[in-house]
Amino acid sequence: MVNRRQFALGATAGTAALGAIALGSALTPARATTAKALASNPPEATRQLANWIVHSAWRDVPRSARDEAVRSMFNWVGCCLGGARHETTDRAMAALTEFSGKPQATILGRSESMDIMHAALLNGITSHVLDYDDTHLATIIHPAGPVASAILALGERLGTNGAEFTHAFVLGVEAECRIGLAIYPSHYERGFHITGTAGVFGAAAAAGKLLHLNEQQMIWALGIAATQSAGLKEMFGTMCKAFHPGSAGQNGLRAALLASKNYTSSNAALEAPEGFMFTYSDEQDFAKITDGLGSTWEVEKNSYKPFSCGIVTHPIIDGCIQLRDENGLAPDMISRVSLRVNPLVIKLTGKKTPRTGLEAKFSIFYISAAAIVKGAAGPNQFTDDAVQDPEVTALREKVEATVDEDVSEEEAFVSIMLVDGTVLEKHIEHAIGSVQRPLTKEHLEFKFSDQAATTLPGSQIEDVMALCWEIQSLNQVAEIAKSTVPTRSG
Amino acid sequence: MVNRRQFALGATAGTAALGAIALGSALTPARATTAKALASNPPEATRQLANWIVHSAWRDVPRSARDEAVRSMFNWVGCCLGGARHETTDRAMAALTEFSGKPQATILGRSESMDIMHAALLNGITSHVLDYDDTHLATIIHPAGPVASAILALGERLGTNGAEFTHAFVLGVEAECRIGLAIYPSHYERGFHITGTAGVFGAAAAAGKLLHLNEQQMIWALGIAATQSAGLKEMFGTMCKAFHPGSAGQNGLRAALLASKNYTSSNAALEAPEGFMFTYSDEQDFAKITDGLGSTWEVEKNSYKPFSCGIVTHPIIDGCIQLRDENGLAPDMISRVSLRVNPLVIKLTGKKTPRTGLEAKFSIFYISAAAIVKGAAGPNQFTDDAVQDPEVTALREKVEATVDEDVSEEEAFVSIMLVDGTVLEKHIEHAIGSVQRPLTKEHLEFKFSDQAATTLPGSQIEDVMALCWEIQSLNQVAEIAKSTVPTRSG
Repeated sequence: MVNRRQFALGATAGTAALGAIALGSALTPARATTAKALASNPPEATRQLANWIVHSAWRDVPRSARDEAVRSMFNWVGCCLGGARHETTDRAMAALTEFSGKPQATILGRSESMDIMHAALLNGITSHVLDYDDTHLATIIHPAGPVASAILALGERLGTNGAEFTHAFVLGVEAECRIGLAIYPSHYERGFHITGTAGVFGAAAAAGKLLHLNEQQMIWALGIAATQSAGLKEMFGTMCKAFHPGSAGQNGLRAALLASKNYTSSNAALEAPEGFMFTYSDEQDFAKITDGLGSTWEVEKNSYKPFSCGIVTHPIIDGCIQLRDENGLAPDMISRVSLRVNPLVIKLTGKKTPRTGLEAKFSIFYISAAAIVKGAAGPNQFTDDAVQDPEVTALREKVEATVDEDVSEEEAFVSIMLVDGTVLEKHIEHAIGSVQRPLTKEHLEFKFSDQAATTLPGSQIEDVMALCWEIQSLNQVAEIAKSTVPTRSG
Repeated sequence: MVNRRQFALGATAGTAALGAIALGSALTPARATTAKALASNPPEATRQLANWIVHSAWRDVPRSARDEAVRSMFNWVGCCLGGARHETTDRAMAALTEFSGKPQATILGRSESMDIMHAALLNGITSHVLDYDDTHLATIIHPAGPVASAILALGERLGTNGAEFTHAFVLGVEAECRIGLAIYPSHYERGFHITGTAGVFGAAAAAGKLLHLNEQQMIWALGIAATQSAGLKEMFGTMCKAFHPGSAGQNGLRAALLASKNYTSSNAALEAPEGFMFTYSDEQDFAKITDGLGSTWEVEKNSYKPFSCGIVTHPIIDGCIQLRDENGLAPDMISRVSLRVNPLVIKLTGKKTPRTGLEAKFSIFYISAAAIVKGAAGPNQFTDDAVQDPEVTALREKVEATVDEDVSEEEAFVSIMLVDGTVLEKHIEHAIGSVQRPLTKEHLEFKFSDQAATTLPGSQIEDVMALCWEIQSLNQVAEIAKSTVPTRSG
């Protein structure tokens, strides 16, 4: 008998093959270990999760989870407005508008409406394109993107009210974060962008809740989501990164819609030996999906970025801005900027001479210089033009970074030597935006307004923000989407 | 310092995280081996493949590849017609029709037209839903599905002629099969349905060729395809299996369209340390992508199923039908059917009592009984009704299978004991449809007609087949699509 590899690669005269079909339960020898691991784990993670989502009632969701869901949605809408006019958004719309169905849902911050599938894709892209959205720190998932993109479009179509919407949002975030927790960090280290790969489940769960799927349909929706799961970290620094939450939102929405018409899928898409968990990750912890459902709420662990670049850079930015503001620093006063950081900072953001706004997010040298010169690290610091700023470039050349294993990923040491010989120092233990120092309502409103100003007039921004804070009591969640369409006076 | 896992899972008070951004070049320790492997491999597989696709000319494609491309397309159109009225297709359309844009492309065998994105999805589903399409045996990819679905829809929109279409088809098949070869079987064994995961590249390459992408855009198209790659083997036996080539076709088409508007992606989506090859597979052979481009043609290795179930069952079906026809067997003459088969047959199709048409494809007991009773193993044998046939069920109970490691996957031994004590035996070395015994033109036409008869009147079937054979010389490839719309008289 030929061995399988010889056979499969045609090294022999073989003509039969492994079969164009295979049973999900058929294990190859290489999978014996994981299959064994499965035996000691909850055997029906998919069904348990689906059952919980289907039977969850709004009254079961505690105030703390509801409140953080509102903050998450508030932050997400602001990010959509910040990204609405981005070139990434324009190019996606240029490519795809021709294929949209009837206008059913708003592209936030723009005058166009599209069918709900395209609206989900586009709003997911805009919300993430500035790298400024939310972060579930235990998984690095950006939870709102896939979920909100899917169900704001669907909710606009269905006439969903704000409470039902917020409920579905909470459940979607729970699903994607729990699935993420069950495979993080192994899955992420393998190369997958977890916001895309786990996000599609959140979108499917939330959309399925709004569609009132029964348990079997919800199981299928999670399965159809699983078999569309995608997103590579290799895409970071390109327009595809923002594509991931959009695509996850769109695909999760499609999964729920297909399931609502009884389009069938696996009953064990998460935990089967050839299901999502074993195929997409080298380690699995199924208890993370099923333990404590309904008693803990992942949405409560959401956080919001004060700076529109990777969280690993935030302690440094915080330190630079504090030193600048406390000392009235101008660039020509500075002879050297010394950073002492966790090794991951250089690994992730060690680019010396970024050429584009996107690349600049991966240069701690640029980022710290811009923070000192501009006193900010928001979207305006990550445009292609901003990267060419001669003052920032000159200061960037004076930045040096030292790696120190004893510096945690949460902290940073910033030291600025002035031309007069003075040395200014700052040790940041926890950056602004961390769980220890969360953004206040005022921070969130500043961030929202700052982004929305690229798209809307000030008076309109106030109206949108007020609606977002009131989301739970809205008769139609569509009110929020529609309030973001630029008025003629804008 | 906290370790990464503690930190990431929130076991400490950590608030910073790995960063919501990361460089593609940043390697985790666990990836050091694969990164090392990369160093000795072609460093620019993505660029080389894109360059070759962009610069390929029709005159460079030899007659042998053109001819097999025509046979592939002929077989694919027939399969679309066979699946056009399937419940899977109906449910997908019920869920998604509302979101279609303007009618731009034909759903083969139906009266509806949809926008090209939906047409790609639907035609990919119909072509695969009967498990009756084509197979690139060295990878088990069903090559036509993703590629033809994408470019027949696009070609209908663009007014593409038959030669240009066939050229793009050949290139798409080359791209998906080479990428498949570079990761098969490791990728497949991990749990991925390779027709979906590799097919998306074929669709992007072929659609990109029709859109006349330049080299940079083609690189991006392959990258956008990579970051949408999906499809789980766990879905086999459910409606999601047929979703995979459709989704791959749609997503590949979208990738090419986005790239045509300069939506950016990675320049090394295939070979980067966190790119497709390392993330989706545990083994890689980059030479399979780049060696001999333009001198060998994967399309020439395509094969076409004579039976609408897994290839692993074909030697048995062939043997059963031959014994039936040679001996005029009727079920009541038979006391026992004994199969001696490679172990994989039972592993993949060992289901004893299938309840649905889909499940029946995974039961060698049902399949052999049906082959003897009906003299066929086509779509009519895999309906939900057919599975309840009392004559087949009675004979199924008399089928026994013995596993024999010395029987190759290409062969099978069938032994039928009659009630009068006679024993009939047949040893099939290579089943009909194999490279050794390829389907003839007459076989392909019988298969096409048999499927199309569920959808179209006989006279129309003749016309469609004639157009398919003439595809290379058509002024508009759309003629084929339009010829499949059921006429009123049908």
